[in-house]
Amino acid sequence: MERNRRITLLRRPVGLPADEDFAVEEVPVPELAEGEALMRTTHLSIDPTVRTWISDARSYFPPVELGEVVRCPGAGVIVASRCGAYEEGDLVTSLPGWQEYSVVRDDVFTTKAPEGVTAEQLLGVVGQNGMAAHIGLLDVGRPEPGQTVVVSAAAGATGSIAAQIAKLKGCRVVGIAGTDEKCEWLTGELGLDAAINHRADGFAEALRAATPDRIDVYFDNVGGWILDAVLRRLAMHARVVLCGAISVYNEERKPPGPANYLELITQRARMEGFNTFDHWGRFEEIAAELAGWVADGRIRTRETVVEGLDRAPAALRMLFEGGNTGKLLVRVG
Amino acid sequence: MERNRRITLLRRPVGLPADEDFAVEEVPVPELAEGEALMRTTHLSIDPTVRTWISDARSYFPPVELGEVVRCPGAGVIVASRCGAYEEGDLVTSLPGWQEYSVVRDDVFTTKAPEGVTAEQLLGVVGQNGMAAHIGLLDVGRPEPGQTVVVSAAAGATGSIAAQIAKLKGCRVVGIAGTDEKCEWLTGELGLDAAINHRADGFAEALRAATPDRIDVYFDNVGGWILDAVLRRLAMHARVVLCGAISVYNEERKPPGPANYLELITQRARMEGFNTFDHWGRFEEIAAELAGWVADGRIRTRETVVEGLDRAPAALRMLFEGGNTGKLLVRVG
Repeated sequence: MERNRRITLLRRPVGLPADEDFAVEEVPVPELAEGEALMRTTHLSIDPTVRTWISDARSYFPPVELGEVVRCPGAGVIVASRCGAYEEGDLVTSLPGWQEYSVVRDDVFTTKAPEGVTAEQLLGVVGQNGMAAHIGLLDVGRPEPGQTVVVSAAAGATGSIAAQIAKLKGCRVVGIAGTDEKCEWLTGELGLDAAINHRADGFAEALRAATPDRIDVYFDNVGGWILDAVLRRLAMHARVVLCGAISVYNEERKPPGPANYLELITQRARMEGFNTFDHWGRFEEIAAELAGWVADGRIRTRETVVEGLDRAPAALRMLFEGGNTGKLLVRVG
Repeated sequence: MERNRRITLLRRPVGLPADEDFAVEEVPVPELAEGEALMRTTHLSIDPTVRTWISDARSYFPPVELGEVVRCPGAGVIVASRCGAYEEGDLVTSLPGWQEYSVVRDDVFTTKAPEGVTAEQLLGVVGQNGMAAHIGLLDVGRPEPGQTVVVSAAAGATGSIAAQIAKLKGCRVVGIAGTDEKCEWLTGELGLDAAINHRADGFAEALRAATPDRIDVYFDNVGGWILDAVLRRLAMHARVVLCGAISVYNEERKPPGPANYLELITQRARMEGFNTFDHWGRFEEIAAELAGWVADGRIRTRETVVEGLDRAPAALRMLFEGGNTGKLLVRVG
């Protein structure tokens, strides 16, 4: 009989998650009830949000409890179905968690891949990352042609798409990333107007030089001191789009907020959060637009792939250490 | 020959402004050029913003330089005119600064009082405070009937108006103030649904009890720990209106920002600053609406009046120590 290998949460990580925070188990593959289908996971999507789910912080989902499979988005193939929505062989994306087999239903968490879309794309550019980039940049940030858009974690899965959408909307786009190699990718292949390595000296001066007309839209994935520095460069009526804050998710004590938040008064500016799930009804339309931009080469993607389910904790650490360029995936054996 | 008594900035205050930070001078009353009129100040408006102007912080105005008259809004009477816009005897509001006589022009900083409006009202409910309350609450906060609105410094000049506008728009309104007497004024004469003394124990519990449906609009005049506490009580799609941050203006080192700002993501909420000067074209229309609400008793006001120009520094201290209820004015002898 087929076994299901899975990784559960053994204890809540303090700081960067360690292998010892998790347990690997083998359990029977679940039986299907009417209305359910069985998905065999091929790829897990390693996102900052997974770190918040395994903390005890309040979020849009309840925290993962100790002993539970680590919640995680992923893609895979339907291998058995008692649900009219899925047939054997369908490629789907869902929230399988860190395990080989999971039960899916015809619900908002599960999406069938459109024709010609790969698992990697389904988890990235036409999935959550693409949605977050599209909705966050265009609906919340509302950049106009000629305006200056700054994106942090710009070489990451979401940031790289947000930056490219801003470019194709006619904006001046400045990316912030953590290595010179990433910065070269941003200004080279992705065509950004400038890129700043936040680990190099002179960040504030580099930001000033790269944004002569100040900053109209800031798409923030990192929080922390970079957010504070950007707040000092806002243009009048600027929009700060809060997509995430990767710099704080590993902190045991909640770090101070942005000391420069009163720049929002001086610049009559706005800071706003969003959640892609609120825009569920537009996912298909947005995915089609993103797929079109990928097909005609206007959006380019990269993946960093870690091999093997058991290395999921290591992949999560890599994400916070900035080891990936573009989408970070675990390929499940 | 008539002399002009005035108060200039001698050195930048550290923390709460001291009398020794200012100098009292007597100089000749200025001569008028063509297009100018002479205003004799009767009332100065003591606002938190005066504290930011005498610091070296960037703001929507340049800092007051050492040796300059302290910039301050005020009201007074035209006593000589070479400007077609004003006649002797006109009651006007402008930015006279801490002095008896000042030159005004036909510009955006100077407004003639409409028929029947007093100097106190002109500086308060139909002036900057009323504008800030109306624009901040209705244009930025956009409360809907039945929603919960929380106002900090709710017994202050701007807060008390914002809270009353929210009431007359059909909202549940909770005021935050610093004494039990102020709280009684808020729930008594002003008709708020609840008021919380932030100096009493158990603030978080009191806030939770007063906002059973969480908080849709927070009109913030104070910043600091109260802002952080309110962020934890936001409803979905809440709006945090940044009107000011009286708790931080006396701090030498910039205090940390709101640690709970990521609640803006969890709640898909927004934090936004504004400046009434951006809405100059609507001042007359808004002032008329406010004057109507005052006339029919739907907005009630109080004033705390300090006698004598020389006591302007003491009045500024009183503002930060919460000594005033409603509008704080200096009557210029």
